[in-house]
Amino acid sequence: MRTLFHMRTDPACRFIRLVLAEKGLPAQQVEKAIWNDEDGALIAANPSGEIPVLVDEPPTGGQISIAPAIPIAEYLEDAYSTTVLMPSTSAARAEARRLCAWMLGKFEREVSQNIVAEKIDKRMMRRGQPDYELLKVGIEALDWHLDYFSWLFDQRTWIAGETMTLADFSAAAYLSSLDYVDAVPWEKYASVKDWYAKIKSRPSFRPILNDRVDGLPPPAHYNDLDF
Amino acid sequence: MRTLFHMRTDPACRFIRLVLAEKGLPAQQVEKAIWNDEDGALIAANPSGEIPVLVDEPPTGGQISIAPAIPIAEYLEDAYSTTVLMPSTSAARAEARRLCAWMLGKFEREVSQNIVAEKIDKRMMRRGQPDYELLKVGIEALDWHLDYFSWLFDQRTWIAGETMTLADFSAAAYLSSLDYVDAVPWEKYASVKDWYAKIKSRPSFRPILNDRVDGLPPPAHYNDLDF
Repeated sequence: MRTLFHMRTDPACRFIRLVLAEKGLPAQQVEKAIWNDEDGALIAANPSGEIPVLVDEPPTGGQISIAPAIPIAEYLEDAYSTTVLMPSTSAARAEARRLCAWMLGKFEREVSQNIVAEKIDKRMMRRGQPDYELLKVGIEALDWHLDYFSWLFDQRTWIAGETMTLADFSAAAYLSSLDYVDAVPWEKYASVKDWYAKIKSRPSFRPILNDRVDGLPPPAHYNDLDF
Repeated sequence: MRTLFHMRTDPACRFIRLVLAEKGLPAQQVEKAIWNDEDGALIAANPSGEIPVLVDEPPTGGQISIAPAIPIAEYLEDAYSTTVLMPSTSAARAEARRLCAWMLGKFEREVSQNIVAEKIDKRMMRRGQPDYELLKVGIEALDWHLDYFSWLFDQRTWIAGETMTLADFSAAAYLSSLDYVDAVPWEKYASVKDWYAKIKSRPSFRPILNDRVDGLPPPAHYNDLDF
């Protein structure tokens, strides 16, 4: 059985859950915080100790472990092409990859590490209150990123061009984790909100909208499709 | 004309220089430190402000800017397939991608940021001496990574399997920058050294072995092919 090691509020893990769901690929989902691998299952599947990790049983036989998120998404695109989430030209594929890397790299470091990690992970690790200086840095960076996304949507239907790609799912995954802690100023960024509403309405998004963290309820609009 | 914005000692940039050379693709190489973009050329090519950035003129016309390193490497593999640097099966491609991501992610954070950034970048930025605590952390992490690579080479000819892939060039690029500051304990890791000697002898490596940083000469063995 295909297995995904993940954490429900981790944006990179959500990206892979969305891609699996879009492609109709069932996976046993094992919740695994990187700071709590007492049974050693995570390190056995991925020597880097990071999530997400996909353990797949490819049609060619055997078992392979793939990490982190971008290699998993590329693998799923390579191996399961019934649903295609990458454009056909090399230039358009490059743009989708640039934006996936943007989300998993720059956005992760500048925004998610300062907001999602502070507000959710710290709580789950019982490490006390969020650091308000880091939150402030993250909120300012988020504004800059949303401004950039708005500029992209002025020229395009989807984030990387005229077709829906892996980049849309990576961006939506990151925004969904921020939305869980009510950190996204949707009203300021109408074109980003319109795009997010489209992605959020897809059946692949439903499990993510049903995620809950003990003692930390999401805002009322979080799983409202007409937010 | 194809243009690469890079820094000569930056491992991710070296990775792309190697891939361009392996594929026989000429590029105008513009040296650009991310902390010194006074003419705005870097931010114009890449809104994330990171290097490497490749500005290509694809056969389909126009101009595209691609960043960071992994999307550039994937693009070059997609668009210029006369020299193939990825295996043919999805499982083998996934393993090559896992190891590229390992180098550009985990190895970059745990080793290069603590050694290359401290010893070279700080000097170029005139920010004083390296922080010896960070160097120590980097050196310990490097030992762990080299141990892992040795374990891989016990089972394989190349780092990701039986063929030479993008993963070999990413790993060799990272080790070459560390070797420039004489940080690699080659004698402790014979199988890693044997593999590096093979890669180092390729014509694509020559420009990298000729790189010099003012006032910071490499060790004698750095550009010796029989080190």
